[in-house]
Amino acid sequence: MCELLGMECNVPTDIVFSFSGLALRGGARGPHGDGWGLALYDGKAVRTFLEPEAAHNSRLARFVRENPIKTLLAVAHVRKKTRGRTSLANTHPFVRELWGRSFVFAHNGTVRGVRRHALGRFVPIGDTDSEYAFCVLLGRLEETLDVFPRDRASKEKLWRAVARAGEDIGKQGTFNFLLGDGTHLYARCATRLHHIIRKAPFRAATLADEDLVVDFSEVTTPKDRVVIVATLPLTRDEVWVEGTPGKMWVFDEGSLRATL
Amino acid sequence: MCELLGMECNVPTDIVFSFSGLALRGGARGPHGDGWGLALYDGKAVRTFLEPEAAHNSRLARFVRENPIKTLLAVAHVRKKTRGRTSLANTHPFVRELWGRSFVFAHNGTVRGVRRHALGRFVPIGDTDSEYAFCVLLGRLEETLDVFPRDRASKEKLWRAVARAGEDIGKQGTFNFLLGDGTHLYARCATRLHHIIRKAPFRAATLADEDLVVDFSEVTTPKDRVVIVATLPLTRDEVWVEGTPGKMWVFDEGSLRATL
Repeated sequence: MCELLGMECNVPTDIVFSFSGLALRGGARGPHGDGWGLALYDGKAVRTFLEPEAAHNSRLARFVRENPIKTLLAVAHVRKKTRGRTSLANTHPFVRELWGRSFVFAHNGTVRGVRRHALGRFVPIGDTDSEYAFCVLLGRLEETLDVFPRDRASKEKLWRAVARAGEDIGKQGTFNFLLGDGTHLYARCATRLHHIIRKAPFRAATLADEDLVVDFSEVTTPKDRVVIVATLPLTRDEVWVEGTPGKMWVFDEGSLRATL
Repeated sequence: MCELLGMECNVPTDIVFSFSGLALRGGARGPHGDGWGLALYDGKAVRTFLEPEAAHNSRLARFVRENPIKTLLAVAHVRKKTRGRTSLANTHPFVRELWGRSFVFAHNGTVRGVRRHALGRFVPIGDTDSEYAFCVLLGRLEETLDVFPRDRASKEKLWRAVARAGEDIGKQGTFNFLLGDGTHLYARCATRLHHIIRKAPFRAATLADEDLVVDFSEVTTPKDRVVIVATLPLTRDEVWVEGTPGKMWVFDEGSLRATL
């Protein structure tokens, strides 16, 4: 199993506090020593930091923590392999371009029967069920819309297409996932997923796995809204919302737009 | 204008020495302060380090130099913008998946008329002529072959398709480029491009822009073959082969396979 971390905000925010919590589970406190990845959006483009090694000992992961990059949308993953070798090609998050924007995907669980689904034009580079599922999902989206939606009605059409693909692929196994499209963060719960929306009045929070405290009131303005999604709550003194198996959240501008 | 750097080898090699020379031109010795990028293959997958800032002052560029990653194939770029804003989306090298492998592309020059060419299914994320040209090129390759070639005859068909697309797109402007497909390094010269193949007997070399010397005989075995391609020679005491305008080199396993 693996752990997922997503962030979606209305103002550029750094993910260091939450990523530190996740990195601790990458080989130190947790059993997820087979790689880690972090994708940070800048508009429609994304930069990724990927390593097929434990996050806890990684110099690159330390560099990312010490040199925070602010973003509106981020997806991170630490991996305990269940299917597929430990390699760069098998390291989440995966990235593909669709409609002139980067789509980013990370998965928790195993979808053993995923290869029953036909691929569209997106082809896996590695040999995980996760990347295969991502390719199937993007193929479905491309069948539904010709361009990235601008109006609310088309956006809802996209959200429903993601949810339907998630439900369909999820019939073949455990399909918790995070998907970013440069605007939205989609978070599907198959078995375990949690989220929190931090907003004014901000207060302090303590990492669940370490005595690291951040007082968010010192680093935010009253208008800030920051969504954090994680497999398990990352802090011990905040109230996290538990996901419902089979349901998917859609976040935009630090708000929950839909549960589908 | 920008500067290109490519490396293609028969054994995993780190690119630190050459990248150090390129990074110096990214804002320190050269006028290329609008971003830099480095793509390092691991099999069919690639990891990229991208920054829309000068390489010379970059902490990430320093991290890459201090934590070398060995690879068989790498493409790097430092940018002086001629078209398109300074942003992550406009930072080379660009990456797309085709046939289940990562293709990587970096461009030197300006192709003003590139938008006369129709796009296939690959759509630019940023607004550079370079990324547009890459999308056109990949669309052409997809029209030519259904899968990545395995036999020599199909490989030569792919090489010719890349060369033809280069020639066609190059009619609209200056189209020096490096393209990687996980196996080959393609290097097209429109105006300026150089290469060198380092092989036994190895000797020392000195960076053109700095008094940094590496004795390759100390870090290689007699079977090693390392191709370096660069806009301008990176060392001052080696003999570099100058490219012929309108011609493209194809490298594989540290050897020049074709000039098309």
